[in-house]
Amino acid sequence: MAPSESGQSMGHEAIGVVEEVGAHVRTVERGDVVVMPFAISDGTCEFCHEGLQTACVHVGFFGNNGTNGAQAEALRIPYADGTLYPLPVGDDDALLPSLLTLSDVMGTGHHAAVVAKVAPGKRVAVVGDGAVGLCGVIAAKRLGAEQIIILGRHPDRIALAREFGATDFASERGPEAIERVKELTGGHGVHSVLECVGLDQAVETAIEIARPGGAVGRVGVPQHEAIPGAEPSFYNNITIGGGPAPVRGYIDDLLPDVLEGRIDPGRVFDRVIGLDEVPDGYRAMNEREAIKVMVNPS
Amino acid sequence: MAPSESGQSMGHEAIGVVEEVGAHVRTVERGDVVVMPFAISDGTCEFCHEGLQTACVHVGFFGNNGTNGAQAEALRIPYADGTLYPLPVGDDDALLPSLLTLSDVMGTGHHAAVVAKVAPGKRVAVVGDGAVGLCGVIAAKRLGAEQIIILGRHPDRIALAREFGATDFASERGPEAIERVKELTGGHGVHSVLECVGLDQAVETAIEIARPGGAVGRVGVPQHEAIPGAEPSFYNNITIGGGPAPVRGYIDDLLPDVLEGRIDPGRVFDRVIGLDEVPDGYRAMNEREAIKVMVNPS
Repeated sequence: MAPSESGQSMGHEAIGVVEEVGAHVRTVERGDVVVMPFAISDGTCEFCHEGLQTACVHVGFFGNNGTNGAQAEALRIPYADGTLYPLPVGDDDALLPSLLTLSDVMGTGHHAAVVAKVAPGKRVAVVGDGAVGLCGVIAAKRLGAEQIIILGRHPDRIALAREFGATDFASERGPEAIERVKELTGGHGVHSVLECVGLDQAVETAIEIARPGGAVGRVGVPQHEAIPGAEPSFYNNITIGGGPAPVRGYIDDLLPDVLEGRIDPGRVFDRVIGLDEVPDGYRAMNEREAIKVMVNPS
Repeated sequence: MAPSESGQSMGHEAIGVVEEVGAHVRTVERGDVVVMPFAISDGTCEFCHEGLQTACVHVGFFGNNGTNGAQAEALRIPYADGTLYPLPVGDDDALLPSLLTLSDVMGTGHHAAVVAKVAPGKRVAVVGDGAVGLCGVIAAKRLGAEQIIILGRHPDRIALAREFGATDFASERGPEAIERVKELTGGHGVHSVLECVGLDQAVETAIEIARPGGAVGRVGVPQHEAIPGAEPSFYNNITIGGGPAPVRGYIDDLLPDVLEGRIDPGRVFDRVIGLDEVPDGYRAMNEREAIKVMVNPS
């Protein structure tokens, strides 16, 4: 992130303890352990009521465009009633890493799976083996997928994906990856693709490995102006959807599975650092030394 | 169409009377009045069973790639049991024009509406005022849309769209069209967009007029390699789907409404010609003198 004169802080995923509340806050109290989804939402507008909190009329993204981020000792949360989700745990709970993923990566992987219409018995591919892709594997398994193919090339991440429920993997890219997935699926491709990268080639691959009538859920932030594959997606009746996940809306669904130990997405955190080590944490993720780094500012 | 040495005939939409059947045909008899959907389908493969007949493992398109078309005195129909749909009418029925639209344009407009998730109470926009767009208006109304905005600029077609159920129209293009639809919808756009053109600008407009969380059903054959609007479609969680409509599968649904007079899509035919006049028929459609021309070869 480029330096800024006003001192914009970074960090859009957080879990923490409420220190103080404003006069109009009703659902959150001092001392509550809360998840902070990456988007601000008022909880009352028509989009929030429809469960698309990332289109809230008061939406804002932590760490972006003047809204401060959570890599800090403390953070003021606008629209706390709509934004924060109080948790029934203490601040030393062993589940905190998994609960923290409800602020973004677990909800985002789940969004990709929902948009890609994962359902019992379906064949699924996950493009990308980062934290979101790995959570996408958890989400696909949780929704009943019969086959889960992860496309990625990092042995440690593939190993974790297998523990999360992946049944196959493809380390190829481009045309070879497409061929490999076709081979693994009896020739037609998968019903559901979770696109967790956002690069042009990844989206193109996602479309090409989808079965006719299939769906692609994209949650990788697009690094391109146009979606590749206008013709194959058309001739195969592929549906392409997705975007910033309304993770606030998914917590009701996902929380019981975390609390009761049926899913353990916190395993994507393979390093814990303090605030002063943040630059080195980014370096470690960038160089693929770590899957995802957790910052403990206390 | 360019001349061909082998004599490829044109025409992918037809209704007619069965003159002869092959030894293995079981569901169609000599004398039956039948609709011929634009795609050949075997009716037995996994895609046909899923209702996506345009992805049939034996798919072919009439008038394309060596499969003859229906602008002819007679036509051999491959996979007749899967492809043809026998109708409970005589060959002089007044409903024949409306029944003929079940071979393509009515089923295609319906596909756009289904993919765009039109449902009771939704706001809908139809991009394009050709025969498919007009049938899209019928489909949207039939599925319970509360508001139907047609984007087009031909007064005769807009007038027909209004009779079919359009509540508003926008004759602007590009940014002005987007602004107009936003105005007509309280600022947020429509839940469902039926994209019935296929040109780059039409698809871009379709994405921009969709409400966050909305869906675009595209049935206009894409004239572009990439789908424009990767970023707005992502940030607004717009779903983009569609392709060649499985019209064979939609006949069960649509036929009762045609037979009982609840919908009258045959009104898109505003000229009837003989086989010898086909070139002039194409000219008339190309110059927007006619919406859609029906050829009566008898």
